[in-house]
Amino acid sequence: METGLSRSTIGSRVDALIELGIVQPVKDAVSTGGRPSARVAINPRARVVGAADLGATHATMAIADLSGRILAEKTERLEISRGPIAALDCLTHTLTDLLESAGRSPSELVAIGVGLPGPVAHETGKPSNPPIMPGWNGFDVPAEIRKTFQVPVLVDNDVNIMALGERAVRTDASDNMIFIKAATGIGSGIIGGGKLQRGAQGAAGDIGHIAVSRAAGIACRCGNIGCLEAIAGAPAIASAIRTKGVEADSTEDIVALVQAGNLTAIGAVRQAGRDIGEVLNMCVSIINPSVIVIGGLLAQTGEHLLAGIREVVYSRSMPLATQNLTIVQSKTGGEAGVVGASIMAIEYALSAEQLESALTS
Amino acid sequence: METGLSRSTIGSRVDALIELGIVQPVKDAVSTGGRPSARVAINPRARVVGAADLGATHATMAIADLSGRILAEKTERLEISRGPIAALDCLTHTLTDLLESAGRSPSELVAIGVGLPGPVAHETGKPSNPPIMPGWNGFDVPAEIRKTFQVPVLVDNDVNIMALGERAVRTDASDNMIFIKAATGIGSGIIGGGKLQRGAQGAAGDIGHIAVSRAAGIACRCGNIGCLEAIAGAPAIASAIRTKGVEADSTEDIVALVQAGNLTAIGAVRQAGRDIGEVLNMCVSIINPSVIVIGGLLAQTGEHLLAGIREVVYSRSMPLATQNLTIVQSKTGGEAGVVGASIMAIEYALSAEQLESALTS
Repeated sequence: METGLSRSTIGSRVDALIELGIVQPVKDAVSTGGRPSARVAINPRARVVGAADLGATHATMAIADLSGRILAEKTERLEISRGPIAALDCLTHTLTDLLESAGRSPSELVAIGVGLPGPVAHETGKPSNPPIMPGWNGFDVPAEIRKTFQVPVLVDNDVNIMALGERAVRTDASDNMIFIKAATGIGSGIIGGGKLQRGAQGAAGDIGHIAVSRAAGIACRCGNIGCLEAIAGAPAIASAIRTKGVEADSTEDIVALVQAGNLTAIGAVRQAGRDIGEVLNMCVSIINPSVIVIGGLLAQTGEHLLAGIREVVYSRSMPLATQNLTIVQSKTGGEAGVVGASIMAIEYALSAEQLESALTS
Repeated sequence: METGLSRSTIGSRVDALIELGIVQPVKDAVSTGGRPSARVAINPRARVVGAADLGATHATMAIADLSGRILAEKTERLEISRGPIAALDCLTHTLTDLLESAGRSPSELVAIGVGLPGPVAHETGKPSNPPIMPGWNGFDVPAEIRKTFQVPVLVDNDVNIMALGERAVRTDASDNMIFIKAATGIGSGIIGGGKLQRGAQGAAGDIGHIAVSRAAGIACRCGNIGCLEAIAGAPAIASAIRTKGVEADSTEDIVALVQAGNLTAIGAVRQAGRDIGEVLNMCVSIINPSVIVIGGLLAQTGEHLLAGIREVVYSRSMPLATQNLTIVQSKTGGEAGVVGASIMAIEYALSAEQLESALTS
């Protein structure tokens, strides 16, 4: 049980951090009455991070400073199914261009955060059997990126980084929050005790394949039957709308119909909300969040999806767990992912262990 | 974004910690090649904590040193329903006696950890509408205890402290663990990312009132219908055994029948395991633990309860979430609570904020 404190080296570490430009001395506002103290503050403009949010068909890359401010950003058309080499080649080239357009040099880069549309073992940065990503299973994403940028590379699934991004932009954000991505698939990112909860294999928050009553007997693309996604994912909603004679194929079609006031689409979305609510109900008992944020493309249907969710969560959950619970729509649009990826990189770069290793290497 | 580091005061803080006897200088084993560093280590024998695990009818109190070693312990008969004044009077008197029998003075006490058999707002230490604790709702437990001992008092519900205690004694413990207490009620304590997850109102892990299929229509003591507890808690198991003509009233009766090989009791316990498994299934998808530990008095039925749980969890959960998941029986008997209460107090006493405030006050 060593504290890790090392008296004579702390002073020199702070000196080295000042030398690196990561911290700067500031005037101490409050006197503690003892010896005058030389307080130091993080200098957010000193260094930058790279961020990438890779989806099924598009990728958004950005450069951000250590305060999380985006300095340059670009979205490229990119099929994730083309495999990791093509995708990460696009990623490193775009980050190189963005560094240049932000007027920053590659030597100022301290870390890169990457979001991928599938399960990822966060500790190693390797995808774990991602269903829509052929060629990515077990691929060493950090090693590939480090061929271009010799900095730490953090990788996580897209819903987790969206949760981090959403939390950063909300004033009602909380240490206990569930972020739901509702689109083709349904997933969640969980903030518990102020930290992103990844679980043992990076699979925490994978709520799309929990069994719900209305899905009984229905086959899911995961190979199981009765999953939430099989009844409340966008393809299932579109199919329910079509059986009532209204044309709908994509998530965008569903959103357009709801926004146009089509009652068939509104009814189907509200029912999907009830199904999601059935699972959220259990999440509320298990996690006890103070905020549930509904994001993903389906959240653009607005209050109709939320109404279905609220209907079930507030009618069934325990009073103690719901007395201060709010269920709200995401405030970030497509931005949540890239903002979250930059925050993941910044938090890592500023962590005590990382600062220490930067100073001793 | 200040680091909080204060160069000139760090040295003097460490000096003060050494003066308090909490840390002591140690020989540095590994040279970093730079200036010689004076490493310091926690001195676990310097100070002690008080611990109390209050149940429905009994209370266990203990004194432990900062390494978690129990120095003195005593269990008293105590009806929690007699109200907070009587219970906390017993607690402070017993801790006073235990300090004396351990040969330690009250001035060596740095914190007290208390577990209660109901929901607790951990931040304030006040119980929140605990069903079996008349007179305790909103009662300021820390303030009452501080009339005798002027130290920080941490309060949590019994399942949370049992999770902390179980984690401390297991070699297969993990940063992502679910501890289940199965007895009259059913609850859980969740360790996520290495930290106890309490949620927004201290209600995280409250799985006893999640709806399960077999409980449909059955009234629960919480006022809702269809809850897990209504079908898999000890009273429901005893009732199921009685309907088959076998006498069983208490949890102890159930355990005795199973241990004697009664097939009716074994069948009822295994079915309760399946019901608990239905809820754990969802917990596995949401939390992605690597270990689920089954404790509480019903766990003494051994493999029969676990077999029912495993049957459902492994057949339904996602492969990624179950590939390294183990489901095991608790290793701590009645000890988990008091060990966990002492760990809660030690972790608080040794936290950076607490050490800092001890030094500046």
